[in-house]
Amino acid sequence: MFQIPRGTRDFTPEEMQKRRYVEEKIRSTFQQFGYKEIQTPTFETLELFTAKSGEAIIDELYAFKDKGGRDLALRPELTAPVIRFYVDKLQMESKPLKLFYFGNCFRYDRPQKGRYREFMQAGCELIGTDTPEGIAELIGLAYTILKSVGLKDLKLFIGNLNILSSIFKTFNISKEQQKKLTPLIDKSMFNDVVLCLKDFGISEKDAQKFKEVLQASDLKIILELTEKDEQAKNEMMKLKQIFELLKNVFEIKTCEIKMSIVRGLDYYKGVVFEIDAPTLGAEKQLCGGGAYELIPLFGGRETPTSGFAIGFDRTILALDVEEYNYPSLKLDFYVIPVNEEMISKSLEITQNLRKNGLSVDMDLLKRGMSKSLKYASSINVDKIIIVGQKELVDESVTIRDMKTGAQELVKIKDLYQNLR
Amino acid sequence: MFQIPRGTRDFTPEEMQKRRYVEEKIRSTFQQFGYKEIQTPTFETLELFTAKSGEAIIDELYAFKDKGGRDLALRPELTAPVIRFYVDKLQMESKPLKLFYFGNCFRYDRPQKGRYREFMQAGCELIGTDTPEGIAELIGLAYTILKSVGLKDLKLFIGNLNILSSIFKTFNISKEQQKKLTPLIDKSMFNDVVLCLKDFGISEKDAQKFKEVLQASDLKIILELTEKDEQAKNEMMKLKQIFELLKNVFEIKTCEIKMSIVRGLDYYKGVVFEIDAPTLGAEKQLCGGGAYELIPLFGGRETPTSGFAIGFDRTILALDVEEYNYPSLKLDFYVIPVNEEMISKSLEITQNLRKNGLSVDMDLLKRGMSKSLKYASSINVDKIIIVGQKELVDESVTIRDMKTGAQELVKIKDLYQNLR
Repeated sequence: MFQIPRGTRDFTPEEMQKRRYVEEKIRSTFQQFGYKEIQTPTFETLELFTAKSGEAIIDELYAFKDKGGRDLALRPELTAPVIRFYVDKLQMESKPLKLFYFGNCFRYDRPQKGRYREFMQAGCELIGTDTPEGIAELIGLAYTILKSVGLKDLKLFIGNLNILSSIFKTFNISKEQQKKLTPLIDKSMFNDVVLCLKDFGISEKDAQKFKEVLQASDLKIILELTEKDEQAKNEMMKLKQIFELLKNVFEIKTCEIKMSIVRGLDYYKGVVFEIDAPTLGAEKQLCGGGAYELIPLFGGRETPTSGFAIGFDRTILALDVEEYNYPSLKLDFYVIPVNEEMISKSLEITQNLRKNGLSVDMDLLKRGMSKSLKYASSINVDKIIIVGQKELVDESVTIRDMKTGAQELVKIKDLYQNLR
Repeated sequence: MFQIPRGTRDFTPEEMQKRRYVEEKIRSTFQQFGYKEIQTPTFETLELFTAKSGEAIIDELYAFKDKGGRDLALRPELTAPVIRFYVDKLQMESKPLKLFYFGNCFRYDRPQKGRYREFMQAGCELIGTDTPEGIAELIGLAYTILKSVGLKDLKLFIGNLNILSSIFKTFNISKEQQKKLTPLIDKSMFNDVVLCLKDFGISEKDAQKFKEVLQASDLKIILELTEKDEQAKNEMMKLKQIFELLKNVFEIKTCEIKMSIVRGLDYYKGVVFEIDAPTLGAEKQLCGGGAYELIPLFGGRETPTSGFAIGFDRTILALDVEEYNYPSLKLDFYVIPVNEEMISKSLEITQNLRKNGLSVDMDLLKRGMSKSLKYASSINVDKIIIVGQKELVDESVTIRDMKTGAQELVKIKDLYQNLR
């Protein structure tokens, strides 16, 4: 027997039904917001990802050479491929360009709950605007998508990397020192941040103040600190506008400031945000995004960009935890021929019903009435059509209701007629 | 600038709209026939594919080692993964099991029109029955799918590998000799087949007779040849039943016998079929399938299986050649705030319309009326909502019809009301 590769999954019909349902909800919400779908290849040149994220990412990639000796990698995320596509072929499109995608991604990670080696991301890029209303709509879209799939318990956090930089400056923390701090900040290890700051020669009082700012959920504390920095003040004004739009227009009540969002990535700048499903525990982040700069690095003309990615698999996990009630996919009819001579007629009835848009299956095993009825109840169908010799003389079939067991004789032409 | 890997493609919004439309048609037809969707990982262990297709397939694969030293390969097709999944987790399900899938596949092929290194397949497996009605329904399904996506010009060919074996036996062609012949037969190189047969010491007359059988479109010629072989006769009876069901129930008029279908694969047996789009020229095959035996090889209990795969990319190409008219995806409204103070109200109106199920976009660039109108006409939207100070006092907005240029003043609440 062959094994499935470690960290990957097969999806049963029941799971696929959930996944397609959620996918369709996400797609239609993107479209309602004026976004258009694109797709890129499953693998890219390795250097696309190292250019964006540094050589260290190679350890987390499925990288391989093709037979021409070219270094390729299964994509670990979709922003780099989408921006490559944009620079290559879409730069001349009207702005803002609103692009969304679904795609499988791959990471050579230790498998654990909510983390797989192959996983799906849904996401988007907004290219050509960084107005507060543009960013607010982007964040509002991410939140609306997760609400539209049926999630109830969500938490939105917003940070700003320009403001964080300004705070670093206020405390005279050098670029080198920032590099040591950001991983600790990213993991919310605030006590270690304080220890680290004291190592840098920063006073206990300032270190505590810094920690307080990182944990602040109130814009006021941050406003005080950034008063003297013009750029930071501008960003704060913009952040306030975004907050107001999210509260008033998108009716998001649980929106908090979180200065400790660093997104672990070098190319983000300005507004960053995350949406969590608190029900999921340790691996609770469903969505992350913000404003970033990648187009010039990829050889394109500088233009404001932002975007987000939603972890599709975690979204499904969160729905499961919330015991979301998915609509079920039912067959309309199951057709049983009473004997071999009835097969052709049964297949004809089956096919005519399908032509009218119904989902219909038929016994393909010549297995007799009682076994067929047993099978029918195992596949979750409401109504059975029994095709028998005696009834056919009268151009009729028997319809059996699987819930009540009630049977009635129906003319075949009435059966078709009722569908119109 | 980074390059897309050779032989792979990016899909623009216009292309994706076509692809999703066709995908949805295919999915709903599978579901109407009682099939259920499953999904397997993008890569598998290398040995899964070599077990099925022999070591030679390695040359056509994207194979690589993961960091644990395991040999993996991007899947070149989906039957092996689906049967692995079945043997591992689905053997206990009620029979027949009707499974369908969509999936990207990868082949290290020389790129050319209609052949890509990454391509999509849609297909299915029917597990647990090989009755004539079962096989007829399978072939009918493949044909119905291609019709349902909008293709007009299709040709269906049916062969049978058991009958072909019997014909080989009649002419005393050994297994070794068959191996030399099948690639020639597969490529319809019939003159070379004749030369090859004469090399084997077969008389000119018999070689010509063999060629005639391979090219026969009439069951009679084949019937004559296989008269003495009980098994072949049974297969012929079954084939006749299948032909009748396809003509009478599925109304397929262009269904031909084609004994030269060998599908180039060792594990097929019994009925095999192909559907071509003659409009596509050299790479015209859209669909191939038949009955096969793979489950015991993968460690499962023997049970009849059959299935087919549709080349999704070629299906799209064939629709393009037939100039198929896809439905277009339009925005319902584009909202323009006349100045900065109108932004919040505009976003609110936009969001309320979306909540009512409409697709609505809004100017996110503060670019003024004339530029916004120009943008609106570039994104193909019928109606514009202009949000202005003067009209807002009266709780109204201006609606402009982009086709006629006509404008009218509408109360905001009437705008929402009309949606219900």
